Amino acid sequence: MSEQSPPLVGVIMGSQSDWDTMKEGAALLEQFGVAHECRVVSAHRTPDWMNEYAKTAEERGIEVIIAGAGGAAHLPGMVAAQTVLPVLGVPVKSRALQGLDSLLSIVQMPGGVPVGTLAIGESGAKNAALLAIRILGNSRPELREKMKEFCQNQTDSVLENSEL
Amino acid sequence: MSEQSPPLVGVIMGSQSDWDTMKEGAALLEQFGVAHECRVVSAHRTPDWMNEYAKTAEERGIEVIIAGAGGAAHLPGMVAAQTVLPVLGVPVKSRALQGLDSLLSIVQMPGGVPVGTLAIGESGAKNAALLAIRILGNSRPELREKMKEFCQNQTDSVLENSEL
Amino acid sequence: MSEQSPPLVGVIMGSQSDWDTMKEGAALLEQFGVAHECRVVSAHRTPDWMNEYAKTAEERGIEVIIAGAGGAAHLPGMVAAQTVLPVLGVPVKSRALQGLDSLLSIVQMPGGVPVGTLAIGESGAKNAALLAIRILGNSRPELREKMKEFCQNQTDSVLENSEL
Amino acid sequence: MSEQSPPLVGVIMGSQSDWDTMKEGAALLEQFGVAHECRVVSAHRTPDWMNEYAKTAEERGIEVIIAGAGGAAHLPGMVAAQTVLPVLGVPVKSRALQGLDSLLSIVQMPGGVPVGTLAIGESGAKNAALLAIRILGNSRPELREKMKEFCQNQTDSVLENSEL
Amino acid sequence: MSEQSPPLVGVIMGSQSDWDTMKEGAALLEQFGVAHECRVVSAHRTPDWMNEYAKTAEERGIEVIIAGAGGAAHLPGMVAAQTVLPVLGVPVKSRALQGLDSLLSIVQMPGGVPVGTLAIGESGAKNAALLAIRILGNSRPELREKMKEFCQNQTDSVLENSEL
Amino acid sequence: MSEQSPPLVGVIMGSQSDWDTMKEGAALLEQFGVAHECRVVSAHRTPDWMNEYAKTAEERGIEVIIAGAGGAAHLPGMVAAQTVLPVLGVPVKSRALQGLDSLLSIVQMPGGVPVGTLAIGESGAKNAALLAIRILGNSRPELREKMKEFCQNQTDSVLENSEL
Amino acid sequence: MSEQSPPLVGVIMGSQSDWDTMKEGAALLEQFGVAHECRVVSAHRTPDWMNEYAKTAEERGIEVIIAGAGGAAHLPGMVAAQTVLPVLGVPVKSRALQGLDSLLSIVQMPGGVPVGTLAIGESGAKNAALLAIRILGNSRPELREKMKEFCQNQTDSVLENSEL
Amino acid sequence: MSEQSPPLVGVIMGSQSDWDTMKEGAALLEQFGVAHECRVVSAHRTPDWMNEYAKTAEERGIEVIIAGAGGAAHLPGMVAAQTVLPVLGVPVKSRALQGLDSLLSIVQMPGGVPVGTLAIGESGAKNAALLAIRILGNSRPELREKMKEFCQNQTDSVLENSEL
Repeated sequence: MSEQSPPLVGVIMGSQSDWDTMKEGAALLEQFGVAHECRVVSAHRTPDWMNEYAKTAEERGIEVIIAGAGGAAHLPGMVAAQTVLPVLGVPVKSRALQGLDSLLSIVQMPGGVPVGTLAIGESGAKNAALLAIRILGNSRPELREKMKEFCQNQTDSVLENSEL
Repeated sequence: MSEQSPPLVGVIMGSQSDWDTMKEGAALLEQFGVAHECRVVSAHRTPDWMNEYAKTAEERGIEVIIAGAGGAAHLPGMVAAQTVLPVLGVPVKSRALQGLDSLLSIVQMPGGVPVGTLAIGESGAKNAALLAIRILGNSRPELREKMKEFCQNQTDSVLENSEL
Repeated sequence: MSEQSPPLVGVIMGSQSDWDTMKEGAALLEQFGVAHECRVVSAHRTPDWMNEYAKTAEERGIEVIIAGAGGAAHLPGMVAAQTVLPVLGVPVKSRALQGLDSLLSIVQMPGGVPVGTLAIGESGAKNAALLAIRILGNSRPELREKMKEFCQNQTDSVLENSEL
Repeated sequence: MSEQSPPLVGVIMGSQSDWDTMKEGAALLEQFGVAHECRVVSAHRTPDWMNEYAKTAEERGIEVIIAGAGGAAHLPGMVAAQTVLPVLGVPVKSRALQGLDSLLSIVQMPGGVPVGTLAIGESGAKNAALLAIRILGNSRPELREKMKEFCQNQTDSVLENSEL
Repeated sequence: MSEQSPPLVGVIMGSQSDWDTMKEGAALLEQFGVAHECRVVSAHRTPDWMNEYAKTAEERGIEVIIAGAGGAAHLPGMVAAQTVLPVLGVPVKSRALQGLDSLLSIVQMPGGVPVGTLAIGESGAKNAALLAIRILGNSRPELREKMKEFCQNQTDSVLENSEL
Repeated sequence: MSEQSPPLVGVIMGSQSDWDTMKEGAALLEQFGVAHECRVVSAHRTPDWMNEYAKTAEERGIEVIIAGAGGAAHLPGMVAAQTVLPVLGVPVKSRALQGLDSLLSIVQMPGGVPVGTLAIGESGAKNAALLAIRILGNSRPELREKMKEFCQNQTDSVLENSEL
Repeated sequence: MSEQSPPLVGVIMGSQSDWDTMKEGAALLEQFGVAHECRVVSAHRTPDWMNEYAKTAEERGIEVIIAGAGGAAHLPGMVAAQTVLPVLGVPVKSRALQGLDSLLSIVQMPGGVPVGTLAIGESGAKNAALLAIRILGNSRPELREKMKEFCQNQTDSVLENSEL
Repeated sequence: MSEQSPPLVGVIMGSQSDWDTMKEGAALLEQFGVAHECRVVSAHRTPDWMNEYAKTAEERGIEVIIAGAGGAAHLPGMVAAQTVLPVLGVPVKSRALQGLDSLLSIVQMPGGVPVGTLAIGESGAKNAALLAIRILGNSRPELREKMKEFCQNQTDSVLENSEL
């Protein structure tokens, strides 16, 4: 993973097994050349480190935190509770309930502590990265340009193969 | 609330508005004469205090923690992550999804960090207290006796009014 | 509504009746002194204007769009499809399905077009505003400071009334 | 696909991968000899083209539009918002939530902009075609006759194999 | 109800109590000057009459049947099974499950027998009428014009009150 | 299938593909020596035959009708509407929604027309047969005896293998 | 309640508060002149009595047991496990989850122990009584006749008020 | 299975097929050296033995009962109704509804009879064992120590592999 410059985006996830989902987002950050770091940070198994991660992210230069988790997914909300950075949540598909539990555990935050939640699974991981880049783009014109190209390519690719 | 002796049960909840639900459990602890304390401890708004509460509960003599919360209910799971005491979770009925979100956020914990979850709402609050008393009863014969009486009374009360 | 300086945040909603929910977010933007505008923009009844709104938002200086809608809630996703700004979605509680339809219609976006989704109803409206402020805070230290104060006040307010 | 005469039915879908589902409907249109066209038109990736498609369908002689989409399925509703033709929606089975999200995103349209929604998946794709043919049949007696034969055959086929 | 000319649209519903919902659609048919009839026809309590209604609708000049029902809502599907006319289904909000049961009972038809399903409740009743008018409009230019006006008025009404 | 004497139980199902599920029930009827018949009778594709089947079942000596169907499962309810025999419904597991649609379509009948509903899938098919036999047993002591043996065997079989 | 002759139907329910729902069924049994008894029998609070009730029902002449319960509704299934009589279950509407929990707890019985489940709430209570009467009617021609009249009246009552 | 000393924990399950899930919990009890027994005890097929098991568990020295069951899962609640010991419930993943039915059948107990419910499936089985050990730890310092080590190991294992 390219992590040359100090990371702007922190990609964290509750368990090693979430990487299969979250790597889709990391790949997009890579593709856009956005410095980032990827870590397993478990709300339930490493609460102290999670707290430290959340509390020090801002001073380390992180501007957006992407947190993926499944089941009773507490990571995004607990990180959001301990930073003033924007936090994006990715519900990882769970075994029994297909990620509906993950989705509700992440999105139904009480007023006061926001988590911007994306779709369940890989689409959500990709979109968390793209939303992070849109956020970063507010003060980085070159990223904004790249995003416009990305969207244009996406459009072109559909148009070119539209006939069935 | 009677809190004469050092509390054996900690009853905590994510917000003042959860008290309407949780007081049903507190009343039962009172009725059984179990020393307890009731506190608002918010996972999202007072994470540091929650951590401290969870980490010091054992040394303060607490034997069971009952945690009620609604929506993306992270309190029970986060407390369970920072104590080795048994933690019981009460899903408080939420506004939009009637507590289904609260239930899934509390019960679907990953393997490794257990929360014993009760029913949504007041029944759950009552049963959390009763389960706490059953747990305490393992080493307190007088509580076990009281529980047997409680169950017998419950049975008698149905039997007396069974004909319609 | 205070809209002195050119708005940084566009708060749009699918129908007049959504204002009851969305005004909770507008009030927070007001409280933080963030210039914003509030408009009814219907994906289904004013698609042309929605397209224009989405396409011109960036050049008008908007940095975050908050879109609330209920039922088959297409507004947030369709706006996200036509801007490179970050778009936040608020599922408004619906009549029959309590906002579960609104939530799924907003959050389950396909990979490529992100909408950061908040909770159903008023909590979501508040949190959309707070997330917008966190995003704006990345390049506005004074907003970041205000957010830290807001969080601290929120914490203090719980701590002061914690005993029951 | 037989598209000799100007198409009466436009079959569109949000992504190439929806074709597996939607081709079941196209096959029925083919079988009934109804001129039609099949296109990938993405609400989120090609909004401009979607708008154009919807706005020009009537003048091109299209009488029914069938739109299939999955997840936060905005295509049917957004097309319905920009044409006065009848629009039929097919919820494509989604990965995590099995098409429940697709269904609710399509069917729960606000009063004013109708989408006639069919079942999730292949049954829905078939039935969208059959409903389109029923609609066309109102002014095309030969199609009505063919539909009667189709129904009769369907009945006969069950009756012939009814004993187990 | 204005039923001067032979009805083009049959509005039927499973019980008297569904009229509160279905009258919203009837009012729109009235407003567009579309001849129609409104009847209580119960799949479960008057199956013979339902069969007769379905089988004779076409010869009586009906072009679209709108059927509303709640709970285990069998009316729309059973009517569709006995006519070759387009049938539109309106899930009436049910007592316990809020219309989710009605929706699934109507929309999940097997391949072969289509029901175009609208939203749960009053929005669905309105949209069933509007979809019927769109269908009739295929061969009635004056209805098509009226629908365009209706849509334009709808658009104008949002635009005029867009600022909050 | 053993159908020597005139059948007491009619086992019907909406499609050939439901046989995989329903045969589990037929096997139990066989095992208990209960005369029965198995037929594909589709509410949607053979409504006339369904009506005839339902209306003539009683005079043919049938005492219980078991009807299995999936998706918008109308067969059990429509049969119940046209007979005064007890009707038992088996929700067949559906493709997208796993049988939740089948279950709600069968069980949520309006007051006046009862369908005794069993579990989704094979367990339900088995239990429909067992419930039919319990019903028949009310006036057939030898069946009642066999059912007692069946239950005893079931109990014994668990007890014998209880240790793990 | 008329309980002149030895009861043929036992109507039991888990709690006094279920009577509001279950009395709808009792009224129908009364109307048909079917001897019955109504009792509160709680699976959880009076398990011994429930066991006794279930085990002795047959020898007391009961031919059908109707059991209503809400939430984790164990009464119908546990009674079915201890009798060979047909048992019908009525899911009582619950506070948080509207009876979906009651429904699933009653209907999803494992293969071997059947409960014929009716709709949630009052419709279900009525239909349990009607299904019981259909079952009794198998060997009681006069009840069968009354049921035919009941159905005919039901039909007539819809037909008389069909026009709106 | 090591069952040297008299068992402190009773692990029971409704059917042989639940062992695949429940053995995950048994393995943890083994690992912690907690004497336990594992039995198939079916609420529906062996109600008498279930009653006996529940009623005699306390006098045999059992301190916690773990009960796993799927579908209409009555075992945990019925055991809780007949003992004053703490009972923990594990919803086993079911075939059609993925364990949502099991979860609701176990967790939604009425006030008065508590079941501490864990997650659906293997995570739940593991956590039931861990919660039992936390409960036993209240009066067994050496178990408490082992639990602290277990948690520490769990934390260390995440930290060591945190970088991706």
